Amino acid sequence: MGMDYSKITDWILREDCFDPEKLGKCEAVMSLGNGYLGLRSATEEHYFNEARGMFVAGTFNKFDADEVTELPNAADQTAIDIFINGERFSLSDGTTEDYTRELNIRTGELTRAMIWTSPKGAKVKLAFYRIVSLKRLHVIAQRMEITPINEEVSIKLKSGIDGTMTNTGSQHFSDGDKRFYEKRFIQFVQTTGQSGIHFVNTTVHKLNIDGRALPADAAVYIERRKIYGGFDLTVRAGETLAVEKYSNVYTSRDFDTEGMNVTQLQELSLNVSKELEALGYQALKEESASCWEEEVWKLAPIQIEGNAMDQFSIRFAQYHLRMMVPAHDARMNIGAKGLSGEGYKGHTFWDTEIFLLPYYIFTDPKTARKLEEYRYLSLPGAHAKAEHNHYQGAMFPWESAWLDDGEVTPEYMDVDILTGRPNKVWSGFIEQHITADVAFGVWQYSVITGDEDYMEKYGYELIMDTAIFWASRLEMGEDGKYHINDVVGPDEYREHVNDNAFTNYMAHWNMQKAMEYYHLLKDNKQELFQSLNQKMDLENAYAKWEDGCKNIYLPTPTKENILPQDDRYLSCRDIDLSKYKAQEHVAGITRDYNLEQINQIQVSKQADVLVLFFLLEDIFAKEVKKASWEHYEPRTLHDSSLSLSTHSVLACDMGEKDMAYDLFRKAAAIDLGPFMGSSDAGIHAASFGGVWECVVYGFGGVRMLGGRLRICPSLPEAWTKLAYTIIWQGQKLAVEITKDDVKIENLTGTQKVEVEVNGKACTF
Amino acid sequence: MGMDYSKITDWILREDCFDPEKLGKCEAVMSLGNGYLGLRSATEEHYFNEARGMFVAGTFNKFDADEVTELPNAADQTAIDIFINGERFSLSDGTTEDYTRELNIRTGELTRAMIWTSPKGAKVKLAFYRIVSLKRLHVIAQRMEITPINEEVSIKLKSGIDGTMTNTGSQHFSDGDKRFYEKRFIQFVQTTGQSGIHFVNTTVHKLNIDGRALPADAAVYIERRKIYGGFDLTVRAGETLAVEKYSNVYTSRDFDTEGMNVTQLQELSLNVSKELEALGYQALKEESASCWEEEVWKLAPIQIEGNAMDQFSIRFAQYHLRMMVPAHDARMNIGAKGLSGEGYKGHTFWDTEIFLLPYYIFTDPKTARKLEEYRYLSLPGAHAKAEHNHYQGAMFPWESAWLDDGEVTPEYMDVDILTGRPNKVWSGFIEQHITADVAFGVWQYSVITGDEDYMEKYGYELIMDTAIFWASRLEMGEDGKYHINDVVGPDEYREHVNDNAFTNYMAHWNMQKAMEYYHLLKDNKQELFQSLNQKMDLENAYAKWEDGCKNIYLPTPTKENILPQDDRYLSCRDIDLSKYKAQEHVAGITRDYNLEQINQIQVSKQADVLVLFFLLEDIFAKEVKKASWEHYEPRTLHDSSLSLSTHSVLACDMGEKDMAYDLFRKAAAIDLGPFMGSSDAGIHAASFGGVWECVVYGFGGVRMLGGRLRICPSLPEAWTKLAYTIIWQGQKLAVEITKDDVKIENLTGTQKVEVEVNGKACTF
Repeated sequence: MGMDYSKITDWILREDCFDPEKLGKCEAVMSLGNGYLGLRSATEEHYFNEARGMFVAGTFNKFDADEVTELPNAADQTAIDIFINGERFSLSDGTTEDYTRELNIRTGELTRAMIWTSPKGAKVKLAFYRIVSLKRLHVIAQRMEITPINEEVSIKLKSGIDGTMTNTGSQHFSDGDKRFYEKRFIQFVQTTGQSGIHFVNTTVHKLNIDGRALPADAAVYIERRKIYGGFDLTVRAGETLAVEKYSNVYTSRDFDTEGMNVTQLQELSLNVSKELEALGYQALKEESASCWEEEVWKLAPIQIEGNAMDQFSIRFAQYHLRMMVPAHDARMNIGAKGLSGEGYKGHTFWDTEIFLLPYYIFTDPKTARKLEEYRYLSLPGAHAKAEHNHYQGAMFPWESAWLDDGEVTPEYMDVDILTGRPNKVWSGFIEQHITADVAFGVWQYSVITGDEDYMEKYGYELIMDTAIFWASRLEMGEDGKYHINDVVGPDEYREHVNDNAFTNYMAHWNMQKAMEYYHLLKDNKQELFQSLNQKMDLENAYAKWEDGCKNIYLPTPTKENILPQDDRYLSCRDIDLSKYKAQEHVAGITRDYNLEQINQIQVSKQADVLVLFFLLEDIFAKEVKKASWEHYEPRTLHDSSLSLSTHSVLACDMGEKDMAYDLFRKAAAIDLGPFMGSSDAGIHAASFGGVWECVVYGFGGVRMLGGRLRICPSLPEAWTKLAYTIIWQGQKLAVEITKDDVKIENLTGTQKVEVEVNGKACTF
Repeated sequence: MGMDYSKITDWILREDCFDPEKLGKCEAVMSLGNGYLGLRSATEEHYFNEARGMFVAGTFNKFDADEVTELPNAADQTAIDIFINGERFSLSDGTTEDYTRELNIRTGELTRAMIWTSPKGAKVKLAFYRIVSLKRLHVIAQRMEITPINEEVSIKLKSGIDGTMTNTGSQHFSDGDKRFYEKRFIQFVQTTGQSGIHFVNTTVHKLNIDGRALPADAAVYIERRKIYGGFDLTVRAGETLAVEKYSNVYTSRDFDTEGMNVTQLQELSLNVSKELEALGYQALKEESASCWEEEVWKLAPIQIEGNAMDQFSIRFAQYHLRMMVPAHDARMNIGAKGLSGEGYKGHTFWDTEIFLLPYYIFTDPKTARKLEEYRYLSLPGAHAKAEHNHYQGAMFPWESAWLDDGEVTPEYMDVDILTGRPNKVWSGFIEQHITADVAFGVWQYSVITGDEDYMEKYGYELIMDTAIFWASRLEMGEDGKYHINDVVGPDEYREHVNDNAFTNYMAHWNMQKAMEYYHLLKDNKQELFQSLNQKMDLENAYAKWEDGCKNIYLPTPTKENILPQDDRYLSCRDIDLSKYKAQEHVAGITRDYNLEQINQIQVSKQADVLVLFFLLEDIFAKEVKKASWEHYEPRTLHDSSLSLSTHSVLACDMGEKDMAYDLFRKAAAIDLGPFMGSSDAGIHAASFGGVWECVVYGFGGVRMLGGRLRICPSLPEAWTKLAYTIIWQGQKLAVEITKDDVKIENLTGTQKVEVEVNGKACTF
């Protein structure tokens, strides 16, 4: 009971049993959004355990000097207190029949229906409908229907805007202007404390009984941080009361309202309310559903035949991948939980480049470019971080928020079970591979899209600026080699390690790529070269890159062909990990050992060197990959949601098809699966990118290697067909894979595309 | 169902039916406290509608520049999440039998008991016990017992400290240090944002099953703003699991920890936890109950014979009057809701002097002195307010918080039903009578206690400094008279009035009293006179007082003997007020008319000129009082909780015994009565003082008039006896009133006391 997958062939994720102790699951995985705003699917009625949440991309604020900037939880406009004959409607009380909650990922509509009998016996049928418009980025629309079944009931509603929302107690907003217009338009202004961003919300109700319109002016209430109307109605048995509620939010950070003052935003928000009121729920829903069809399902169709759940899983990933991405504004990026919860504070990690970017590059290059422009626009923060740490160039923050926030990783998290104190989080200080990951993303984007405009404006500079950081980061050792000491690699169970293979190889790659581009610009783009040279003193930088590349210590495989993850890993002790490999909840090991102890064990949170193999596939020998896989895989707990998909893709490469498929299904189940607790703080954004990577990179066999497109598919046993589209340098290719065939069609057809298909060079 | 008064003869207020929609009532009226901290009686288990709250006196903080300082809602230490066989214990679910919640006002203990059957059928008996120690100001102690009835159950508890509490969304604290000591002492540090006050909380659990101690070290959790332990237990049928939880709070504002840094506070708090753990609940409860006996019930016993509810009512008032008063620290005063809720932000109003001070002066002069020292210590704020408004001397804030905060009245509240905008609150700008009320309180205190030390250190200066304000406040009119224009009197339904009788007469009284003291000091206390003269230029001030007193316009009665409340009231229109006179909820008129319209109607929120008669009883003719009473009483809606008791006392004076008794019972019912909504934001502090005034001033006939004690009782029909004690200039008098006799005994007996008893001069 809980999640029900019986309607997935209709694109519908269903919940068939409501549990007030497990609200977080559907709030997050059924959340609605459009990249501008994300709305957790908390119910209209309140429950103690609820975590209501609405987040507007990029509106970062810092609660106080000791906290880091985060996406504030904005005022709630979705709650409606419902009283039937004076009794509060709540599924915790009374009895509920025929309950269902459904998210239609094709249309982006959330619906809920049930028959509810109150503790005192009033029986009503209720239905709820809700969208966040993909067409109108600022708009939420709701519809509610209540039908008394046996006898007339009195219905009392309290509904408006609630600004008491916090991020687990941290209040980001100053209480602001509140007012009613024409007794029915309810408007509320809030302003973030540190970043000074105004939020203007306006909501309005439309009521009818069996189609007969009722006046929507309400008893009016203004309280601290709250403004709402009260409606008192009587509805006869068999009649249906329909209430529609149209809400919008505008902020002074919005790309489309630049330069407006708060009064202008208020006017705009009010006028939009009037427009929405005139349109009504049905029209708003339909126009938004059309956008989903055009912008997602027609844009990047993926077809899996053979297993309906797998088909739904990839579409579910695409649903969330669209919702989470601020495609409208390059000043923003994707948060680790998208816009679906407070978790990770809305911050952007390496997840963007390594796990998410490939999807957008191959399906929606315009959006991908926005994500990569963000890294350029946030260079001020990266420079500040480098300078603060006495390095040069661009040192990207492990966690990124607003453009000039710089490093925003919180310093403490969870509890050390031995000392009883919070754990220090070292990532913000020493998880430095992010800088190479950013450069890698730039390179990936530019090669796959062929977007030379991006490279000229942003890309070359980013790759060189990050390479300058790496050159300054190298430490000369007694062995005459450069080392990168005291870092955290992708495997965060190992802190303060030296010569993490992932970090060293990626730093090397980054400097090498900068040298390559140095020559390219010097030879072919003199003007750009001069301008970048002025900015970054490229001659001098080049000398350092050359020296760095030549003398950096790159870990070499052991005689057993295992690439050492760092200089200590392979000498640590082994313990029996079976308990944790079989765990239902992640991070079980941290409840038995503190991090210092974990550091002494051969255990990984996620596949560290395996990610390296995945990114720099062509520089490691097959036997090294194989031996390393066999060593690290059993020691990896997948306590990061990023780990499973990498393993799945690698397993494909290793020819371990069953394991690849098994890991894919586990990766797909991270949010979609039946486990009811792990999505509470929000969905796992990167894991949706990872699901796409499993399907298109893993089974679909797509890879960009050294600037060339390769397709080398390997369908899972369960599948009879896999079809997807990818865009390669402006040409959209339709790929159709069956058990024994690969068909590729160039849908754009304005240029020929060379592809290596199953080892053979082809042209389409 | 709801409040149950069947055990009031045992000093017990009882709730016999739990309604999760009506939580505020018992949270507030059954709240616990000791003047240092106030704890709302929210239940151990959570409900959506709960308003948990713990307030520490004097710890004011300002959330942001647009808000005023308020008492922050501190971290919660009382919640315990209870899961029985995996089902959350909640009275909203399953079935509950034998429910009772009881506040024993004699001992200050709150208890709760019930038999609960979970939705899936697990049946347990639960009992909860809780005190806030009157002996140890920083301490809360809880005990909980769970007994499975039919079969063994698993019990899971989550309990610790929750710092996500806000004041309706405003978060006053920065998240701070969190840690476990010895896996069981749970400590949490928070710091207020603007005022920088550290709060250190430590809590610890002690568990046993049928007396067999269990280890109290728990699974440990540290989250954002939360730290808690998890306990997993199995309890057999018939066995009782007992969990005791001892919590304390220390702040850097405390009088008893001055100079300690936060580390020292943490050590102290931890050590106190260890002490509490050793003592246990029973011992902590008993020592606290002894304090209640000594400090309240033996100190100021009041006996009413003839009606048990009335007897309970006055004791209930005394219970709250002790809990709300920061008797330990003169830098703090009484909030309008005591320490029992967010309402009125913990601010001090004229309520202290006019409605509360008499109780303390007559029963506990040391505490009364503290309250009056507060006014002296907060002179910096009063001077600042005068200066800001271009007046001189001490202009006291309408609402007071910390000593130098000055005026802290919020500028907006509720909604204007016509414009849809929040109402402007004018009190902070123009409700100026507070300054005379403060002076009046000083005078009352000094005359009744004879505390010349207070007068020399603080009192004379306060009365002169306030008089200087009034002299500067007077406005010369075209009629050659001084007027006080554009004010709000005690009747807040009339804004921007001129020559409010209460204000003008009290200003006059204030200046006159200053002149009187001027002579007294000049003649008898030369040194003090010189020092005050230097501070305030008394010669110059005296001239202004003399001019002011001579030329101030004092409203005179009409030919019908009605004293005009202001220069417009009597010419306003009359409307039919019967609907509002009969209202169940206060302020019904504001839902039909906006304040501008109410200003044009002869209607009063509270008895304005009647309060004047009450304070300056001896300067108005009996027929003026009578005629005014008959004019204003029918037009007064008692939409202020201060109004009923004044009316009751006045009705006694008017000889309207039945009405006096009726009004007394209504006043007593404000919080104690069965209405379940009106105490949500906290109890009505002044109304408890008013209840005492009804009993001792009204029926008991006590009054200080022109410096002399008068006792002129008039027992209600229902009562056969009333006995109380009062302290007059250091002599404690026991007064016993029966239908036809008044007995007075001087219990102290070190000095003779002159009393006018029923018109006759007597000595005791």
